[in-house]
Amino acid sequence: MKMISGGVCAAKGFTANGIRCGIRKNRSKRDLSLIFSETPASAAAVYTTNLVKGAPLTVTQAHLSDGVARAIVCNSGNANTCNSDGIAIAEQMSRLAAQQLHIAAEDVVVASTGVIGQPLDIAPIAAGMPALAAGLSADGSAVAAEGIMTTDTQLKEVAVEFTLGGKVCRLGGIAKGSGMIHPNMATMLVFLTTDAAVSPDMLRLALRTDVQSTFNMLSIDGDTSTNDMVVALANGQAGNALIDAEGDDFSAFMTALNTVTVHLCRLIAGDGEGATRLLECITSGAADLKTARTVAKSVVCSSLLKAAMFGADANWGRVLCAIGYSGAAVDVTRVDVAFRSAKGTIEVCRGGMGVAFSEEKAKEILMEKEIEILVNLGGGDCGATAWGCDLTYDYVKINGDYRT
Amino acid sequence: MKMISGGVCAAKGFTANGIRCGIRKNRSKRDLSLIFSETPASAAAVYTTNLVKGAPLTVTQAHLSDGVARAIVCNSGNANTCNSDGIAIAEQMSRLAAQQLHIAAEDVVVASTGVIGQPLDIAPIAAGMPALAAGLSADGSAVAAEGIMTTDTQLKEVAVEFTLGGKVCRLGGIAKGSGMIHPNMATMLVFLTTDAAVSPDMLRLALRTDVQSTFNMLSIDGDTSTNDMVVALANGQAGNALIDAEGDDFSAFMTALNTVTVHLCRLIAGDGEGATRLLECITSGAADLKTARTVAKSVVCSSLLKAAMFGADANWGRVLCAIGYSGAAVDVTRVDVAFRSAKGTIEVCRGGMGVAFSEEKAKEILMEKEIEILVNLGGGDCGATAWGCDLTYDYVKINGDYRT
Repeated sequence: MKMISGGVCAAKGFTANGIRCGIRKNRSKRDLSLIFSETPASAAAVYTTNLVKGAPLTVTQAHLSDGVARAIVCNSGNANTCNSDGIAIAEQMSRLAAQQLHIAAEDVVVASTGVIGQPLDIAPIAAGMPALAAGLSADGSAVAAEGIMTTDTQLKEVAVEFTLGGKVCRLGGIAKGSGMIHPNMATMLVFLTTDAAVSPDMLRLALRTDVQSTFNMLSIDGDTSTNDMVVALANGQAGNALIDAEGDDFSAFMTALNTVTVHLCRLIAGDGEGATRLLECITSGAADLKTARTVAKSVVCSSLLKAAMFGADANWGRVLCAIGYSGAAVDVTRVDVAFRSAKGTIEVCRGGMGVAFSEEKAKEILMEKEIEILVNLGGGDCGATAWGCDLTYDYVKINGDYRT
Repeated sequence: MKMISGGVCAAKGFTANGIRCGIRKNRSKRDLSLIFSETPASAAAVYTTNLVKGAPLTVTQAHLSDGVARAIVCNSGNANTCNSDGIAIAEQMSRLAAQQLHIAAEDVVVASTGVIGQPLDIAPIAAGMPALAAGLSADGSAVAAEGIMTTDTQLKEVAVEFTLGGKVCRLGGIAKGSGMIHPNMATMLVFLTTDAAVSPDMLRLALRTDVQSTFNMLSIDGDTSTNDMVVALANGQAGNALIDAEGDDFSAFMTALNTVTVHLCRLIAGDGEGATRLLECITSGAADLKTARTVAKSVVCSSLLKAAMFGADANWGRVLCAIGYSGAAVDVTRVDVAFRSAKGTIEVCRGGMGVAFSEEKAKEILMEKEIEILVNLGGGDCGATAWGCDLTYDYVKINGDYRT
């Protein structure tokens, strides 16, 4: 497997585009994106677990009931959630895209991200759709990625190349993250495309399995959004034998999928609202996978630890504290904690007790952009990884006045 | 019932003191406090649910097993947690206090608050204890309250006077809060004293019942501390008939207790680390008490909403979002939301959908120091209140470099 460029257009038969249609009048950023598959594709999605669900999710769920889709249309700047006309607007958005692409509206995935509870005006979307569709191209991944961004500061795209039964396949994706990312479920927008041939059922299985160790292990601020989802389209243009059961090909596909999704998780966490550091909590020695995941998530979700990481402060007591209230059954007298970065590793806690360490060395390690928090629970063979970011002045600034 | 002064010394037969013994060398603040009852008192406590428990809690639990105590000794600046000699130090601390007070060490409640995982030097505590005990006075509540503060900016004390069977009784308390306050359980230090005569069993029942609607409904940052507890001492000097069963007297006592604890909750939430506003989420129309509480807690715990409140931004979508991921079974299409303060009330959401409102009026309401978030779930008769604070630059600053 190798990393390649092209993002969501790396796979054969996919084109994309992103334009500024004017949903937010005072913003110069692109705000409307389209991803298109030349041929029908297997389609699967995972949705937010929030009881308040954006209207686009309801419409998309209906459209994906047959496991097939050909396009994804997404706007930023308005979530089209908690509006009385939300469903109608989301349906209209998919019809507008379908008309330009000469496909059925039921083959369109529709998504929105932004502010909740403000009516979404369809006019700029309707006006922009012809140009959006006309501009679809195999080079369009980056502009599509820009079109779905909200408070993101960095464009998020990635792709890999791998082989299935001797056929070269590609899998790529774009993502929108930043605030409001929290475990249980993929609470962000992630659009994945592949030219591998995978049945809708197996694509759904692959996605549902993968998110448990990737997007569900990602937290920016503990809030779970109403709108976000992960969608995968597989159009089969690579010509591999259709994956319609578990086996070697499915495993190889899962590996490629996981490579892409872990990469996107790291990009999303590192670009959390106001974040200056990517935090990765790696647990080991857990009695079971659930414990390993619960502890890792609790650590990256701790506001106190996140603020300490912003200050490059090796306050390991906050790691232990977060383990203690995680709800997992852990013997705290067996817990070891270390911090690791490109500058080295420093052990700070052994058997639940502090060990003497150099504050200077710890500071040097924690000043890096990517910090690993290593937690050995000393009670088994299971491990997990969770991703998060530090809590900074800018998080407060960005969210203190998001609407105005 | 009336509010009176005197805090933890308002009740007959209680004295207190607080001194600077030098646990934190670079701080001028008082860091060692003592509360004393002239006569043996019924004693009850509620402890943190964190699996990582401070050594003082273990020692206190043992000392309170007979339901009787006479003194509380507490230091700030060091939590005496995750240290190999923690239990021995906590026992030594209670022996030192007992010696000066000529009581048994088993009648001393011991508490510590501050940094985790740094050995607590007993020397300054031993050196300071004689002066601490010698200075005990009926005017000592405020200095005792200062001695237990960490990042608190305001002293927290309150007392009430009420009658039981014609006898005038008093109940007062001091508290230490700020960061690391989270529901499930009373994760802060609260010391309550009363001269009412209450049996240890009934005092325990009163405290355990009360914290469910008070300290367990309080959150500053979602983290649950390792060290914190609520302790109540009742020495019976008011001369009322001993409360040893439920009934009118017990109800009157519960009312007095609740008045004091709600007051302390509001003081603690309003003085959350870096807080500029006290948030109070009041739910109604819930099918059951658990739903009412779960929703109220979820709202005051949302980082996104807390940041919006800092910016006086009526971003009610974040309220709905927090309700949606709370885990409570709620029909979101029946939810009404309003914001209320001394400047008035503004409805922002009806039946799960936004309603038109004046942004100007909303801003005026939300600029106040105390904000109520009113959530009617439209599905029953139960309600609850949760307390929190806004998320500010200063929270990040305080916690970004707490140890150094």
